[in-house]
Amino acid sequence: MIPAQIIRKKRDGQELTREEIREFVMGYVGGEIADYQMSAWLMAVFFKGMTKKETWALTETMLHSGVIADFTDVDGFKVDKHSTGGVGDKTSLIIGPLVAAAGVKVPMISGRGLGHTGGTLDKLESIPGFNTRLSLDTFKKQVTDLGVCFIGQTADICPADKKMYALRDVTGTVECIPLICASIMSKKLAEGIDGLVLDVKTGSGAFMKSRKESERLAKALMEIAQAAGKKVTALITDMNQPLGNAVGNALEVTECMDVLNGLGPADLRELSIELSAHMIVLGKKAKNIDSARKLAEEVLRSGEALKHFEKTVRQQGGRFPMSKAETTTSIKALRSGYVKAVEAEKIGLASLSLGAGRLKSDDVIDPAAGLILHKKIGDKVQKGEVLVTLYHGKSRSTEQARTMVLDAYELSAKKTKAPRLIYKVMQTKGKT
Amino acid sequence: MIPAQIIRKKRDGQELTREEIREFVMGYVGGEIADYQMSAWLMAVFFKGMTKKETWALTETMLHSGVIADFTDVDGFKVDKHSTGGVGDKTSLIIGPLVAAAGVKVPMISGRGLGHTGGTLDKLESIPGFNTRLSLDTFKKQVTDLGVCFIGQTADICPADKKMYALRDVTGTVECIPLICASIMSKKLAEGIDGLVLDVKTGSGAFMKSRKESERLAKALMEIAQAAGKKVTALITDMNQPLGNAVGNALEVTECMDVLNGLGPADLRELSIELSAHMIVLGKKAKNIDSARKLAEEVLRSGEALKHFEKTVRQQGGRFPMSKAETTTSIKALRSGYVKAVEAEKIGLASLSLGAGRLKSDDVIDPAAGLILHKKIGDKVQKGEVLVTLYHGKSRSTEQARTMVLDAYELSAKKTKAPRLIYKVMQTKGKT
Repeated sequence: MIPAQIIRKKRDGQELTREEIREFVMGYVGGEIADYQMSAWLMAVFFKGMTKKETWALTETMLHSGVIADFTDVDGFKVDKHSTGGVGDKTSLIIGPLVAAAGVKVPMISGRGLGHTGGTLDKLESIPGFNTRLSLDTFKKQVTDLGVCFIGQTADICPADKKMYALRDVTGTVECIPLICASIMSKKLAEGIDGLVLDVKTGSGAFMKSRKESERLAKALMEIAQAAGKKVTALITDMNQPLGNAVGNALEVTECMDVLNGLGPADLRELSIELSAHMIVLGKKAKNIDSARKLAEEVLRSGEALKHFEKTVRQQGGRFPMSKAETTTSIKALRSGYVKAVEAEKIGLASLSLGAGRLKSDDVIDPAAGLILHKKIGDKVQKGEVLVTLYHGKSRSTEQARTMVLDAYELSAKKTKAPRLIYKVMQTKGKT
Repeated sequence: MIPAQIIRKKRDGQELTREEIREFVMGYVGGEIADYQMSAWLMAVFFKGMTKKETWALTETMLHSGVIADFTDVDGFKVDKHSTGGVGDKTSLIIGPLVAAAGVKVPMISGRGLGHTGGTLDKLESIPGFNTRLSLDTFKKQVTDLGVCFIGQTADICPADKKMYALRDVTGTVECIPLICASIMSKKLAEGIDGLVLDVKTGSGAFMKSRKESERLAKALMEIAQAAGKKVTALITDMNQPLGNAVGNALEVTECMDVLNGLGPADLRELSIELSAHMIVLGKKAKNIDSARKLAEEVLRSGEALKHFEKTVRQQGGRFPMSKAETTTSIKALRSGYVKAVEAEKIGLASLSLGAGRLKSDDVIDPAAGLILHKKIGDKVQKGEVLVTLYHGKSRSTEQARTMVLDAYELSAKKTKAPRLIYKVMQTKGKT
């Protein structure tokens, strides 16, 4: 294989064979194909896209570039959820133990936050002692015994994706649906799942701003899952404002425990139950979505979901209490009105500026930092009422967070309505 | 400057500023911007193109990345010719001394051949002792004294182009008009010229196969020359078959000397005179193209052009005779008919297979190898008549060359006409 020929073939819009993709990607992993050839190829893919076949070939190559969790000797369906990401999006912490409590195995390999969105691993690690660096063997054992385990990507899972993602990040080739899909799905398939529920966010705070784009992404992800013979359901859900009220690691864990205790914000609770119900259906623990929803509500009400969460935390070395922020600062409304918008990205950046996230991958996070939203879209606000409470270290400046928060809120004289939470459910059955 | 932002800006179709292009390219030359970022950017340029302003900014940056010949203290106009390349395209060797004999200074920095097309340097170096590795100072002195000098690119001319071209070659980003134009024009402008005549080839043996594409390339090259304040004329000329009859280095030099002696093939002679005449007009040694053509014919007839050629060869260390091929092989027509096509690329590859060219940049050339075409488009051929004579070393296999030659010739039962030699003249005046 001559690398420049593969690049030109893609550049000129011809379909690459499975073998060509495999050789090119594995040649890159092995060092025979240079960074500068891979980046030129990635840019050609950005412009020319990939067919279903090509996307699946890329996913498969990245998947098999590393180890894959093997649950074939473990009874029961393994189902995971993947969200395309947003601000305050913390459902994994609720869903994992909830769905496990309903009898479905949930092997969760999660990522860290970068930029304005948070990461499941960072949230869990705000629980003192919580260890997400487990081996695949330990992971498998805990999924088998407890029904759920949360770990981070290990070096031996999808190394091709890891190397390619780092290159995409510095060559302007991140925003490309087939590359995004192959990256997400190769990692999910490495979990050894039988089924997957996708939470594809849409709206101003999501990667995909329009319904149409979000559905296109959902469809592309579902096609890969189908090619892999997995069952998959996708929900298109709202990210026109943060999900729930808490943004920031320990604050989000607390909010999740509220939901597991039968409390917490309605939107977070509702979305967690819906996603869980779809996982329960895929995991064959309920015949239809209505009875799955009832089962999800039942394991919440009975305390079984919370019990699973506590067991998981203990099993992974976590212990309460979590650290608390040194101080808080209230941000008050400058005028009265109805909340028309709460721009998720600005809220995420406000939280980031308080130390809750990282701009570079080696930044250190303050687990207690973040903010709580007291008003969301549709709420009535009086001038002087608290919109947001900031949680932060005493020495930390809150100026930027204050500007961001006030910028994020748009107030209107007219009454407004809260956005819909779930726009669409897209379903399909896998080959198996 | 954040490199990935510049890449994304180009990727998303926004115009880069002159400063952004300069920083990006010079950052690459300086090693702060990685190969993989430059190659992703080049691929984005392939898809999104460049505006006139951007192309000029790139050309200017590459030009000023190295040294520029300074002829400002030398009287008279300096005019060069550039050809986009073809098989048997040897006009530089005739034009240089001819135009110098007419009183215009001709500073020629030429390249080597790669693949099926030859290079002016390789042709000249088939004259024993001919030295093309002169310093810019010696180059300037000879242009001043003799009116013409032939050298190769030195390491200090356009180093940015050199580094980028090597990368384009292995990343599928060669075939891109703004990149081609900037690469050609930066090197031509480094010669310190006042005017330029472009010989843009069109047809099956040219880089640009159609008239439309060739004119687009000519226009893009002319725009850069204008931006640089240079006078420029472009001729769109035929490359549906090799130019002249000789292909191969020493054979082509001999053919050029035939033309300088008032002999040689009509097409080579005609095109050399036309290109020379346009250079003479740009160099203000004639008022219009008709009197320039007369002047060109006059310096040919008087022997002044040949004298200039011989002086140039002597001055640059060359001495005759040239080496001769050990043996020759005739290729005869398998049937009778009229020549309908002589595919230039196949003829070039036939010559290459005899040792006249190089596939890799470090291949060694046999200066005496090559071939002579005895039949061209429109000629009548009898079965058994010699189509082509191959010149080669005794131990060299001629099988591949024979197949290529027979493949290149298409014979027709119907009478055919020779193609036009010059399709169009495109003119414009520079700013100065």
